[in-house]
Amino acid sequence: MDGQKERGGAGRREAREADRTSDLIFGRNAVLEAIKSGAAIDKIYVAPGDGKGSIGKIIALAREKGLPVKDVSAQKLDAMTGHQSHQGVAATMAAARYCEMEDIYRRAEEAGEPLFVVLADEIEDPHNLGALIRTAECSGAHGVIIPKRRSAGLSPTVFKTSAGAASHLPVVRVSNLIAAMEELKEKGVWLYCADMDGESWCQTDYSGGVGLVVGSEGNGVGRLIREKCDFIISLPMRGEITSLNASVAGGILMYEIARQRLGLRAK
Amino acid sequence: MDGQKERGGAGRREAREADRTSDLIFGRNAVLEAIKSGAAIDKIYVAPGDGKGSIGKIIALAREKGLPVKDVSAQKLDAMTGHQSHQGVAATMAAARYCEMEDIYRRAEEAGEPLFVVLADEIEDPHNLGALIRTAECSGAHGVIIPKRRSAGLSPTVFKTSAGAASHLPVVRVSNLIAAMEELKEKGVWLYCADMDGESWCQTDYSGGVGLVVGSEGNGVGRLIREKCDFIISLPMRGEITSLNASVAGGILMYEIARQRLGLRAK
Repeated sequence: MDGQKERGGAGRREAREADRTSDLIFGRNAVLEAIKSGAAIDKIYVAPGDGKGSIGKIIALAREKGLPVKDVSAQKLDAMTGHQSHQGVAATMAAARYCEMEDIYRRAEEAGEPLFVVLADEIEDPHNLGALIRTAECSGAHGVIIPKRRSAGLSPTVFKTSAGAASHLPVVRVSNLIAAMEELKEKGVWLYCADMDGESWCQTDYSGGVGLVVGSEGNGVGRLIREKCDFIISLPMRGEITSLNASVAGGILMYEIARQRLGLRAK
Repeated sequence: MDGQKERGGAGRREAREADRTSDLIFGRNAVLEAIKSGAAIDKIYVAPGDGKGSIGKIIALAREKGLPVKDVSAQKLDAMTGHQSHQGVAATMAAARYCEMEDIYRRAEEAGEPLFVVLADEIEDPHNLGALIRTAECSGAHGVIIPKRRSAGLSPTVFKTSAGAASHLPVVRVSNLIAAMEELKEKGVWLYCADMDGESWCQTDYSGGVGLVVGSEGNGVGRLIREKCDFIISLPMRGEITSLNASVAGGILMYEIARQRLGLRAK
């Protein structure tokens, strides 16, 4: 969807920074959602503060689940999180929790719906990947697939930007996105890729199994991946700028898929 | 659209950082688009590098327009940009270029279209504001209105995230968003606000003048602003997470407005 090169450098740097603290999550919503979801949490760190509101809720829920809560200074949290916005709470995770393709299939089966999977093709910017996972969860997708190389992972920044969605929705990390696409095709999924010169996004039929490929902010969708897709879909660009932010473009397409699947008749 | 509190702190910090360098833009696309648009550029700074490709294009275009180009070290650019991703090029601007409401009205008149305005209600995160401006430009909106207080401005980060859209689309900064809404109402505009418990986004009619209010990531849409709106519109939330990122939610709604205005019949 995007021909801009400008964010590549920053995306890679942020991805690296995030990797250094990949066993840590922080921010009230992220920690709360992680506890609720039963994610493998090692310990929760809380800075002294109001103690009421969402922090109080986190402490209560953590105790209820038998998770250790440790009081630390705000300075300690600053250092742990590299001075990012922790809102007085952080949690160390036992491991990054990636799911398997089977988890995605099971989710679709249990819902009795045709598969709806989002494939994030080399999204290096953690804010974009986080927003894509968040929107996928909200729009009723059954999972998100990301490649192992040249992609942000389930780092704290991605987790936080996803508003905790990464602990509710299966995120699968694969060595080879093309192989995953072939596996999905065998499951009867049609592959759609957001790119230039495609058919209109709202006049395409998404009623069968859907695999939506969202290209990277830096390079758009790779050639091999585009060739593997059954449909190229496009959004109209009415101004001077020729592309949208990857997570915005992905969000518009996911909600068109959701609209059709919910049987909502558009005006 | 968003009840999350977690990004407020980071957004404010980023907004402050951006303000410190608000006369500077950087990144190849952002500088190129600024030159093309005829924005008031003071000087262009280029680090030694390949000299071909987009940097060469920038230098050639700058010379053509009589703009001074100065060679600097990469370290100097790092320091100027606070170690953000400058891709070897930066430009100092004579001033932040805000437009007037009249510019928005003129754009709609010239296009012979009913007004389509996006009102960003206290969007403090510069990435979100930049993405909103970018999507507004791409979806055919005639302008974006932001409040003077508690909002990111046209900082380098916002400009860059907008992919240069901020130099093509009128962005108006107002002291009082409510007053701007009243002025728009007098122009025959219907005000739509994205929030919980509204009518379905795709079954609402946007064929008249449209003012779309997008709420902040931190607090959603303010109560007074919500009360001033003619329509509350909502997106279905199919998972556990109850809100979308502000720029994603705004993008989905802008493209539904674009679809109806383009007369595209949805599947």
